[in-house]
Amino acid sequence: MSLKGRDVISIRDLSRDEIEEILRAAKRMIPYAEGRKSSHALEDRLVTLAFFEPSTRTRLSFETEVQRLGGRCVTISDPSASSMRKGESLHDTIRMLSSYGDGIILRHPNEGAARLAALASDKPVINAGDGAGQHPTQTLLDLATMQEAFGTLSGLKVVFLGDLKFGRTVHSLAHALSVFGAEIVLSAPSTLGLPAEVREHLDDAGARVTEVDQVHSAVRDADVLYVTRIQKERFADEAEYAKVAGSYRIDNAVLAGAKSRLIVMHPLPRTGEIAPEVDGTPHAAYFRQAFLGVPVRMALLSLILTGRAG
Amino acid sequence: MSLKGRDVISIRDLSRDEIEEILRAAKRMIPYAEGRKSSHALEDRLVTLAFFEPSTRTRLSFETEVQRLGGRCVTISDPSASSMRKGESLHDTIRMLSSYGDGIILRHPNEGAARLAALASDKPVINAGDGAGQHPTQTLLDLATMQEAFGTLSGLKVVFLGDLKFGRTVHSLAHALSVFGAEIVLSAPSTLGLPAEVREHLDDAGARVTEVDQVHSAVRDADVLYVTRIQKERFADEAEYAKVAGSYRIDNAVLAGAKSRLIVMHPLPRTGEIAPEVDGTPHAAYFRQAFLGVPVRMALLSLILTGRAG
Amino acid sequence: MSLKGRDVISIRDLSRDEIEEILRAAKRMIPYAEGRKSSHALEDRLVTLAFFEPSTRTRLSFETEVQRLGGRCVTISDPSASSMRKGESLHDTIRMLSSYGDGIILRHPNEGAARLAALASDKPVINAGDGAGQHPTQTLLDLATMQEAFGTLSGLKVVFLGDLKFGRTVHSLAHALSVFGAEIVLSAPSTLGLPAEVREHLDDAGARVTEVDQVHSAVRDADVLYVTRIQKERFADEAEYAKVAGSYRIDNAVLAGAKSRLIVMHPLPRTGEIAPEVDGTPHAAYFRQAFLGVPVRMALLSLILTGRAG
Repeated sequence: MSLKGRDVISIRDLSRDEIEEILRAAKRMIPYAEGRKSSHALEDRLVTLAFFEPSTRTRLSFETEVQRLGGRCVTISDPSASSMRKGESLHDTIRMLSSYGDGIILRHPNEGAARLAALASDKPVINAGDGAGQHPTQTLLDLATMQEAFGTLSGLKVVFLGDLKFGRTVHSLAHALSVFGAEIVLSAPSTLGLPAEVREHLDDAGARVTEVDQVHSAVRDADVLYVTRIQKERFADEAEYAKVAGSYRIDNAVLAGAKSRLIVMHPLPRTGEIAPEVDGTPHAAYFRQAFLGVPVRMALLSLILTGRAG
Repeated sequence: MSLKGRDVISIRDLSRDEIEEILRAAKRMIPYAEGRKSSHALEDRLVTLAFFEPSTRTRLSFETEVQRLGGRCVTISDPSASSMRKGESLHDTIRMLSSYGDGIILRHPNEGAARLAALASDKPVINAGDGAGQHPTQTLLDLATMQEAFGTLSGLKVVFLGDLKFGRTVHSLAHALSVFGAEIVLSAPSTLGLPAEVREHLDDAGARVTEVDQVHSAVRDADVLYVTRIQKERFADEAEYAKVAGSYRIDNAVLAGAKSRLIVMHPLPRTGEIAPEVDGTPHAAYFRQAFLGVPVRMALLSLILTGRAG
Repeated sequence: MSLKGRDVISIRDLSRDEIEEILRAAKRMIPYAEGRKSSHALEDRLVTLAFFEPSTRTRLSFETEVQRLGGRCVTISDPSASSMRKGESLHDTIRMLSSYGDGIILRHPNEGAARLAALASDKPVINAGDGAGQHPTQTLLDLATMQEAFGTLSGLKVVFLGDLKFGRTVHSLAHALSVFGAEIVLSAPSTLGLPAEVREHLDDAGARVTEVDQVHSAVRDADVLYVTRIQKERFADEAEYAKVAGSYRIDNAVLAGAKSRLIVMHPLPRTGEIAPEVDGTPHAAYFRQAFLGVPVRMALLSLILTGRAG
């Protein structure tokens, strides 16, 4: 089993064993991610970041990881101003890029673009988000956060809270968690529930999934509270938005009934979903989660581009 | 003869011997460009990319080349948002930039800007395109592509097809080819022919230039078919554009009558000028051509900044 | 005394001894800044440039300095297109960034933002300008320019000319100069004088400050003429602007009555404030001043991130 040279388009491209290998490698990467140790794993390697949709956060993260491994980046993040847009096909663009660097990290507004890019490229492609599609490294860092907190993923009770309809983060993560034997609890406003086909897929895969209306009761037994952003533009009516957003807001009062070991996660950026007062509690895991993106992606990049991590 | 410290503003700044030196060095650079060997030629060197006009493709290419040589880049590619535009003269901007890095790669919307920049800078300036002016590294990579395919430039029959009026690529390349003893055939729509002064210049230089109306007959004897983009905005009328673009489109049917050794080149991006079915034929050289920009510019950068290549 | 790990938000965060240490270190950095010697002081260090307001010049300078020290950068300079703007607080953004790199260089449109960022970050923060607030490395490079020209700051007569109201450069520099015992002369259009609170602060600190109306008489005794940009948008009336700008323009005729050792400084970019004919005279120090930003910021970065410089 080797990840060397592999495309990573969807979390489903990775077996359970491969995910576990990446999580173990990520743990070893932490001192390198913190800058306490120096890695030269990607010395003399050049990685192309092709961001055809702005995502400063994800771009910064990947640029950090390539460089923490001693590698170099070239970055597209201004597609609108670019000759990439003179009617050139994605196939042609990717084929050119794949002759420049040693791998491509792709962000694209269109679902399925990463799979197309992998076909056009003779270098590995990592999907950093394609529209409503996949964002597999987000799922990996989410898993790493729970793994670090609990030492296992098996048997965890993970509550997903907020927008479960449009949040692609949730769909991939719920799938991966079910593979690892976690229990999934869904708590969403009526208009923002998990899409039926995602739910069916989870049921078909034998996942243990329940739903709960009340945030308070969802929190009571949870090991992980995975909070997502509820976006104003999903609501026709500002008052309706305010009401829903308010009832899905996590603060210390909501957490009063939680297990002491509960961790609160959030893919960030947060707006009002988690009160700042939670930051000071042992429950707050979202900044750790953001940081863990660095060792997780370092591990993945190293495994894919060199076959080794560390 | 040394290229060390030289400005490269126009292909005409380079003698035939110097062009041949660059092409030989580029050939040696190929394994470094492919990432199979590591170069440290530009270690501890810093190159400034000053792109006052967006050209993502050219920027990416130069950033790749500097870094494949072990060097570092700082890049301007957002001039509109920049304090560069608070009415500062190009002279002042370049003078400041030349005190920061070890060389400047300039892209500018105005013809002649690169020559002005070279006067202001006490570090070497490489022109990466200035308006309707020169783009000498494009010419070098075009020559390298033909040289690699045929082992020589002398005696080749090169057909230029499409927009020969606005395509600056063609003007510089035709000049360089005539220096190396290639034969030039022009095939353009009546409104997009080679400008009279460019044609006169070629004639004065003793170039062998002929014109041909029919694409099919142009293809028959050609060694190189150099296809250019026909831009819709050059036509007053959409129907006229569609008709012209259609008759200058290269597909396998058009190539059926060609020599087996014919190569098809294109500066990319292509839109409809070359059918994707051509990609799978031995004639297709345009992706190789795009890749060869990497070793060619690596050779040039190394020769200019260090006096050596390799 | 050590600067290691320190935030540098305002020039007032630095003692006189610390400023002197930085200026000494900057002098030793000059051959490294010029690319004649190679530094690896920041090898394996990663610095985040968070530019939430465009400033290409300052960004380029810091990217140059980090890389001249062998370090790596990740840069935000496109905040408008960024997920940073999905309503995330500056606290959250900075907390995330501080978990990625080893230090943050912040540019922000809002006065006080850098101080807030320093509170949120557990890595050092260097202020690269926050609104009408501070820009301490500009002050340091201004001091370095005078120190290099005269060997001392004490006893210099420094004339500030032009817009002393909105030019934040002037406020910080005047404060620092008074600490070092320089004499300050103000010469501004009536509507663009030094704000009363800045003047009071200087007086309270025991600075020697005088005002003079006529540019010619201001120039006569000056050691340093610090010229600032007079911005058209500060005037209701184009004619009024033209009149003021004209009377504060420095050319060789104005400098005819100056001391031979007078240096003319300007934070750049200049528009019409200094005639190009001055460039060729020994008085012109503004391009040297721009260059000295490189060794000064190299010294500061090295001292803050490693505790050493050189």
